[in-house]
Order: sequence, then structure tokens, then C-alpha cells
Amino acid sequence: MSDPSRVGIVGLGLIGGSLARVLRRGDRPVVATTRAPHARAGARALGVEVVDDLGAVVARSDVVVVAAALDVLPAVVAEAAALAAGVDHLPTVTDVGSVKASVAAAVPAAQHALFVGGHPMAGTEHSGWEASEADLFHRRTWALAVDGATDLSRWADVARVALAAGSTIVPVDPAEHDAAVALTSHAPYVLAATAATAVDRAPNPALLRSLAAGSFDSLTRVAGGHPTLGAQMAEANRAPVAAVLRDWAHALVAVADRLDGGLDLAEAFSAGRAARVALDAAGHGAVATTRSLDRAGLLALGRDGGRVVAVRDATSDQVEVDAQVPVDRGAQ
Amino acid sequence: MSDPSRVGIVGLGLIGGSLARVLRRGDRPVVATTRAPHARAGARALGVEVVDDLGAVVARSDVVVVAAALDVLPAVVAEAAALAAGVDHLPTVTDVGSVKASVAAAVPAAQHALFVGGHPMAGTEHSGWEASEADLFHRRTWALAVDGATDLSRWADVARVALAAGSTIVPVDPAEHDAAVALTSHAPYVLAATAATAVDRAPNPALLRSLAAGSFDSLTRVAGGHPTLGAQMAEANRAPVAAVLRDWAHALVAVADRLDGGLDLAEAFSAGRAARVALDAAGHGAVATTRSLDRAGLLALGRDGGRVVAVRDATSDQVEVDAQVPVDRGAQ
Repeated sequence: MSDPSRVGIVGLGLIGGSLARVLRRGDRPVVATTRAPHARAGARALGVEVVDDLGAVVARSDVVVVAAALDVLPAVVAEAAALAAGVDHLPTVTDVGSVKASVAAAVPAAQHALFVGGHPMAGTEHSGWEASEADLFHRRTWALAVDGATDLSRWADVARVALAAGSTIVPVDPAEHDAAVALTSHAPYVLAATAATAVDRAPNPALLRSLAAGSFDSLTRVAGGHPTLGAQMAEANRAPVAAVLRDWAHALVAVADRLDGGLDLAEAFSAGRAARVALDAAGHGAVATTRSLDRAGLLALGRDGGRVVAVRDATSDQVEVDAQVPVDRGAQ
Repeated sequence: MSDPSRVGIVGLGLIGGSLARVLRRGDRPVVATTRAPHARAGARALGVEVVDDLGAVVARSDVVVVAAALDVLPAVVAEAAALAAGVDHLPTVTDVGSVKASVAAAVPAAQHALFVGGHPMAGTEHSGWEASEADLFHRRTWALAVDGATDLSRWADVARVALAAGSTIVPVDPAEHDAAVALTSHAPYVLAATAATAVDRAPNPALLRSLAAGSFDSLTRVAGGHPTLGAQMAEANRAPVAAVLRDWAHALVAVADRLDGGLDLAEAFSAGRAARVALDAAGHGAVATTRSLDRAGLLALGRDGGRVVAVRDATSDQVEVDAQVPVDRGAQ
């Protein structure tokens, strides 16, 4: 199948707005709805067809991307899926929320096959249409959920939209996704807020601010973002985030014990360096390969660090993709 | 007194090398010693007088800046102070180490008046002469220790060197400095290493790396630096760093408890945002003022978030400075 011809976007904030910009840059038809007047005007100027409600978006789209705020996201996704089941061309519904299991659970079983959960790993400490930019997704990864009920031809359609936005695709199990981003995204937000607040709790905050340099700036950067977004992400992913925070607290106390015990920290810092080097290397030096995969095959690809860079063909149960696979896995 | 005419630098790594570069850019005479052959050649090319040992640096300098590695720093500072006491012109000795109390304690009481501890709040994740750059200290703060035995005319001389490097000066008590940088610098290094390592400890590290985005990158950035430097900093400041790590662990567990208890995180994230805004605002909107200060006055200035931007005059017990003071303290 060719690229889905018309993309619907529900919500034109940082993510929805940026998606509208990059798709319009590629001259793709986009229909969108938003309650923000300045976003409506801005989107119209880009050639987006701005409509009044969710039903109109669903009726006029092949893939509906729900980019609503996290606290209302499950409800809007469920409503979009119900509407999609009621129109003849049965559009696919996806979302861009930072959690995947709870959003999938909000979709009634009868419409589950229409839904493919997604999560672009892109963002800034800014929010809203004003902060949107066409290059937001460029060279980022975009997680796309795969579970036992996923229709792979719909999965492929959503992947084509994300690829058109400039991302590569990481297939992932919803629960495994939520545990992963608890560690890589939600807990870091908590940590940034916690460390920043420690300055204000100290008896000499002005002195501390004078002595804060690059390391503290990096650590606390994301605490400068909109506090509601950070809180919503963590609250939408409670158990995995709490588990990561307890694990990190345990690790910090272990380092404190070593310091108080007069022991060295060489191993902790060497392991940290090695982990950071591996992080920087991820996605580089990969081997491109064409593969025909079922659901289990897609999940294995993602778990091995592989990324889909093109979709060639798809049926409900099988998808043929070009994938980048880390060098040490390329021979498998 | 005019600027100290000749600056000696012991060690030409990131900090010592960068100081040599910026002072030579200002045509100031610099004499230095280092064991790294490529640094010797590079420094000579800048017009630095490269000599063979510490004694030669001390004999030919008005201010000796010890920029040796942290594990040998106290010993080199003590040796430099002893040598300084033995030459007729009694040069001032300072250092650039990231801890201040233990370095000061290494200087024998008889030479204590010759020593002024310093700590430029500048650095990168790179190290060595190759990483040095003339602009490293530009618009950064440079902590200069003040205690009951500090000779303020020597303190002023060291301040003039740091000002010539492009920094502003934060006067600080040595123990208060160590507690402050435990929070703003050393604990963040531990945290970065801990978070980075958590990826490697997980069952699916390749997937985690694929899903790591900006927030995890910022959080773990400094873990990419030389692991020995990070470990040495924390090990040189054991009790304060351990106290900060236990405090942060406690705060993370408190957030985890709220998550597990179904409570919201609005307050934690709002406090984090406010703290980050205050951090970004530090040093901006300050009022310039000329003040004549004794040791207690200098320490109060630093504690209030004030920074010395010029030294006008000094005696052993009093220094006249231009200072930037935060607006809400300007009227005091």
C-alpha cells in the first residue's frame, strides 16, 4: 500500500503542531482540530484543513493521530476509535502519548484492531503550537506499539506517517514501553525537579546558584518545562516510575555508603562512562537489512535495538520492512 | 596595587591550559610547568615560559596557580606554599581544585597567610591540554575562599587573575563551599553515572537506548567525562556528597510513595520549576555597587548571591571591590 493519503491530527500543541508542519512541508493533506485560536490560524496558513470537531477529523482521514493532553488522551482515543468504527473507510487511530498500556486499555475490544499506540521520542522543555517545529522528529525514534491484536497493515500505515515526519520506528510491547520510558524519560523529570528543589531547601540558595555550573544545569534542565506535563507523565505511569525512583534511591544510598566507608567509586564511575558511551553509540554503525516480520519478529527487532527505516509491504499479520540493526546483531 | 605581573601555572590540563591561553591572549607573562610533552610544546607556542619544576615556577611568579590533578593537589599546594615561604618576594599560592577545606588543611599554619583557595566553576566533559580553550572561564563564577587567616591583599591578587580570565568572583567559606559543590557538582556526577548505569542493568538495554531522548541525554551527559575525575571529586568531598545523595534518595522515595499512594505530584513539579527559574535568573538583573569589605563582609556578599566584578584596592584586612548584588539585596 502507498502512504496513507490523508492524516488527521487531534490537537495542535508541540507534538501535533510539529507533525502538521512536517507533513505539510511534504505537501501531504492534513486535517486537524484544535481549540487554540492562534493554532487554528497558524495551521490554516500552512494549508491544513482545520475542522470543528473530532468526528470531522475521523471522517476525513486515513490515519487519525490523537495528540491531546495526557490527562484526556485515553478518553479522546476511545472516542476516536468509536467514531472510526462507524465510518465506511475504517480509518486507523494512533496517539502520541508518553504511556502506552493505559491508552490501549481505554480502547474497547471491538475497536482494538483499529488502534496502534505511538510515542515519538521527541520534545523540548517548551510546549504549545508556538513551540512546534517541522524538524522536531528529525532523526528521532518513534515507538509504535505491537500487541497480540495489532493489525500489521494498520501498524505499517502509522509507521509510514512517522517515517514521513523524519523518525525511525521502534516496535515495542506496550507494557515494556512504559517501563522503558519510566527510566529514560519520566524518572529523569522527577530527578530534575528534585535536584533543582534541593537548592531552594538549602540554607544558602543564592550561594548555591552562584556556584552551580554545567553539571547542575544539565541535570536540572527539564525541570524548566511546564510542571503540569511532567507531573502528568509520571502520574500516568505510576508503578513503573515509582520502581525506577526506588531503584535509583537504592543506588544513591549505596554510593553514599561507599563514601562514608572510605571506599573508592572507581567502578561506579567506570560503569557510568561505559553506559554513556553505549548510549551515544546507539543507532550508529547499524547494518541495513530487509526483513519480513510477524508481531513477535517486530518485537524482537525492537528489543535488539533495531529500528524500522522503511515499510515495503504489509498484510494484517506480516510486514516487510527495511531495518537498521546494531552491528553485533546484524548476523542473526 | 596593579595586577600581579607574572602568573605561574602548575599543570596544563583543561583548567591550567585554559588559564594559560586566556592570560597569554591578554599578553600577561605566564610561567608554567607540566609533565605532558604536547602541552609543553603548545604552551611555548603561546609564549608561555615553560620551566622544569615547581621551584622554578614559584621563584618566577607573583601568583602561583596550582592546577594539578585532585589526588595530588593537596601535596603540591603544600609544597608550593613551603617553596613560596622560602623566596624573597613571597608569592601567593592558589589552586583550582573542586574542594577547598582539605586543600587548605594541607597548608602548614606557618604558610597559611600565603595561600588563597580557588575553584573556577567551569569545565567540560573533556580533559587535558587538548580540551583547553581561552574562553573556558568567560562569564563563569570563580569561588575564592575566605577564612579567618586570609590575607585580603593576596585574596585581591588572586581575584585579579580570575577576573582577567573572564570570571566573576564568589567569596566563600571553605567548608560552605564544599557543601555547596557537593550539591551542585559532585552529586550530579554520581547521579549521571547512576542513571546511565541503570540502562545497562536492565534486561533490555538496547531497547532503552532506542527510547532514550533529550531528558535522559541531559541527565547523563557528565557521565561521559573521564571517570577518574568524577570519582576523585566525590572521594575528595566524602561527607558532604554522601549527605546530598542520602537527601536526594529520601526525596525520590517520597515521590515514589506519592505515586504508589495515588497522590498527585503537582507540588513537587511546581517547586522544581520555580527552583529552575531562580537558577536561570541568578546573576542577571544585578545591581553594581562599590563596597569596602572585611572578611565577614566578603562572606556575606557571597552568601547573598553577590559577585565581585572588579578589585579597586586592598590591604591585609580590607578590600574595596565593585560587586554585583541581586536586585532584592541591592538596598541592604
